[in-house]
Amino acid sequence: MTSKRLLSEFLATGLLLVTVVGSGIMAERLAGGNGAIALIANTLATIGGLYVLIEIFGPVSGAHMNPAVSAVMAARGGLPWKTLPGYVVVQLAGAACGAWLANAMFELPVLEFSTKTRAGIGQWLGEIVATAGLLLVVLRAPSARVAALVAAYIGAAYWFTSSTSFANPAAAFGRMFSDSFAGISPHDVPGFVIAEGIGAAMGMAINKLLGPTDHA
Amino acid sequence: MTSKRLLSEFLATGLLLVTVVGSGIMAERLAGGNGAIALIANTLATIGGLYVLIEIFGPVSGAHMNPAVSAVMAARGGLPWKTLPGYVVVQLAGAACGAWLANAMFELPVLEFSTKTRAGIGQWLGEIVATAGLLLVVLRAPSARVAALVAAYIGAAYWFTSSTSFANPAAAFGRMFSDSFAGISPHDVPGFVIAEGIGAAMGMAINKLLGPTDHA
Amino acid sequence: MTSKRLLSEFLATGLLLVTVVGSGIMAERLAGGNGAIALIANTLATIGGLYVLIEIFGPVSGAHMNPAVSAVMAARGGLPWKTLPGYVVVQLAGAACGAWLANAMFELPVLEFSTKTRAGIGQWLGEIVATAGLLLVVLRAPSARVAALVAAYIGAAYWFTSSTSFANPAAAFGRMFSDSFAGISPHDVPGFVIAEGIGAAMGMAINKLLGPTDHA
Amino acid sequence: MTSKRLLSEFLATGLLLVTVVGSGIMAERLAGGNGAIALIANTLATIGGLYVLIEIFGPVSGAHMNPAVSAVMAARGGLPWKTLPGYVVVQLAGAACGAWLANAMFELPVLEFSTKTRAGIGQWLGEIVATAGLLLVVLRAPSARVAALVAAYIGAAYWFTSSTSFANPAAAFGRMFSDSFAGISPHDVPGFVIAEGIGAAMGMAINKLLGPTDHA
Repeated sequence: MTSKRLLSEFLATGLLLVTVVGSGIMAERLAGGNGAIALIANTLATIGGLYVLIEIFGPVSGAHMNPAVSAVMAARGGLPWKTLPGYVVVQLAGAACGAWLANAMFELPVLEFSTKTRAGIGQWLGEIVATAGLLLVVLRAPSARVAALVAAYIGAAYWFTSSTSFANPAAAFGRMFSDSFAGISPHDVPGFVIAEGIGAAMGMAINKLLGPTDHA
Repeated sequence: MTSKRLLSEFLATGLLLVTVVGSGIMAERLAGGNGAIALIANTLATIGGLYVLIEIFGPVSGAHMNPAVSAVMAARGGLPWKTLPGYVVVQLAGAACGAWLANAMFELPVLEFSTKTRAGIGQWLGEIVATAGLLLVVLRAPSARVAALVAAYIGAAYWFTSSTSFANPAAAFGRMFSDSFAGISPHDVPGFVIAEGIGAAMGMAINKLLGPTDHA
Repeated sequence: MTSKRLLSEFLATGLLLVTVVGSGIMAERLAGGNGAIALIANTLATIGGLYVLIEIFGPVSGAHMNPAVSAVMAARGGLPWKTLPGYVVVQLAGAACGAWLANAMFELPVLEFSTKTRAGIGQWLGEIVATAGLLLVVLRAPSARVAALVAAYIGAAYWFTSSTSFANPAAAFGRMFSDSFAGISPHDVPGFVIAEGIGAAMGMAINKLLGPTDHA
Repeated sequence: MTSKRLLSEFLATGLLLVTVVGSGIMAERLAGGNGAIALIANTLATIGGLYVLIEIFGPVSGAHMNPAVSAVMAARGGLPWKTLPGYVVVQLAGAACGAWLANAMFELPVLEFSTKTRAGIGQWLGEIVATAGLLLVVLRAPSARVAALVAAYIGAAYWFTSSTSFANPAAAFGRMFSDSFAGISPHDVPGFVIAEGIGAAMGMAINKLLGPTDHA
């Protein structure tokens, strides 16, 4: 039972990173230097991918694909605490494997590291906002529409946050292995992860202030 | 009870402005001077954001995010008249805070004013059409699809109206604080707000002519 | 009763042309000469607009917005033959008014004529394919999804047909009044309308060959 | 009964190729050499087209439009083995006719062959990933959302795989007849088909590991 859930979470996170990194490489190659066109393509692929992954893997493992989401679920009783470490491990492993598979498909060195700097007060604030918003969506969305809502949210947040909304420590970890415009320098990952933790806590707090949902 | 609704309306309107202004700044930075690419990105972010905000905050406060919508709701008995002033105040406050947060994320001066001129018969006519259409959608959409329909409507109206469809006095107020292509010069806000008021009244009148909906 | 339906059909067709022509003008102004970017914007606006118009006006009048659709509905017993002429008249009037309103919003001469040539075997074949496909969608879509399906179909057909898929004699009539890339020279309208009639008949015939739908 | 199903599968696959090839030609003509803009347009048309085709033809024939999907359905008992050859024949015939119709609409030689090279380890790996993912979606999607999920998946996979995700031997066969950026040189078709077969088998295997779905 648990092994199926861990396999599901591994595959979902892996395919999420394939989607984000692969489409990032393709977009950068084709966009002729126009960053907005590249990000539009990356956004559309991410929206479609997230929607599909949550619908397909959600019934097996929840399709969190995100340690911040899993931790909040554990804090709220939706995931046993003892299951959390396994989830986080397969999410990180899946994220790395997904980035490596994307690199292999595009005939890049399988193991490479990003040189893209992502740091500064503005971007950390962006990650806080992005993750707080994601948690609000995850905690308040009606379950029948959670896949569409998370996908729509992240698609919008790619543009409205200054950090292009990673909102996910596993995504930050995996993108470290892509030297494309979707990447993040290893040196900058801790800052993003800390900001995402703060944002997740803020999302939980705001959710509590808003009170229970009709459907919870 | 009411304080939760006011908090919800404040957050929803704030996040709407974060979405509109933030994605406007990001789009302008990346688009290399091509206004259509920038507006496509701004449109996609707005569609996604509106859909999510109405689904998430709608059950708490209605997620009007718009004094014109709240006023029409009050006129139709859907919102107590005594609640209307509070709604409008938090919508305006949220809109300003949202624009300031977007500015902070993108490391711009938190308080700045738009220099973008938006005026003239054509654009005012655009705002009238945009707001009349929005009210028709709000008043006639089946409640299960109102989020998708409002989002789709505004996304289309960004392009088919000459004013890029603010259709919302709170949005006009908040965008005043963004010196990006999503902004509007403070001097031009009153003209837009008047046009939006006329459009809202027209939308109500046309709705009445069309008769009751099956689901109302 | 009938007057409400005619008003609804007039408004829906008018707003469809506002959407198509208005977004065409906006897209052309902003796209810096890149035809694909302009057509992407025009497509997104049309998809959003069609989805909203069918959902909002469909319950009142069916939201055909298209004499070919109304004629097929009459032939199948879904619209009384005596109502058909009124539908066609308000669809054509609405289409013209919609184009004029778009021109007015963008401060163009309200009455202008398109100079855009749209003719030749390839484009006529495109209109036949486009209209046959539209009729298949209209006749076979489950009613709960007809708005989304028609919108998705036309959005795709803007690109896969050589004529950019008018698929609608009222749209051909109304676009005659727009000297933008969305327009069609008056001289070329009859060819398009004939092709649309052939396509509509073919769509009906193929629908019959495929047999009844589960939901019909 | 069977003849209606074969007609449906022929039409669906034909219209899928009209969509893919036609929008490829249009996009290439309009995009001014920017490959990302062309692929965005091609992607949007494909998403819309797939969604409509599965909804409209699915109730008649399943709307596989894809020999790999039909073969997996036969292996799982969802399609009688004796029906499979007929399905594959009409899928291939439909794909060719669709490409020829697209060529005719755009006034290209009806019969032409692609000169676009698509080969190499990276692209074959891309096709394996693309087809494995498609089968997971087809086998695990709730039936009410299969059209939206397949469309969203392929739209994302156009970008995240290095091969732009044909994931379909009939599509590979039909695209051979288009000398546009959507084409594939006849010489490279066998490699793609083999990779798609491997991917389909992998998709089936992973599906088994994940266990039954709630709705199956």
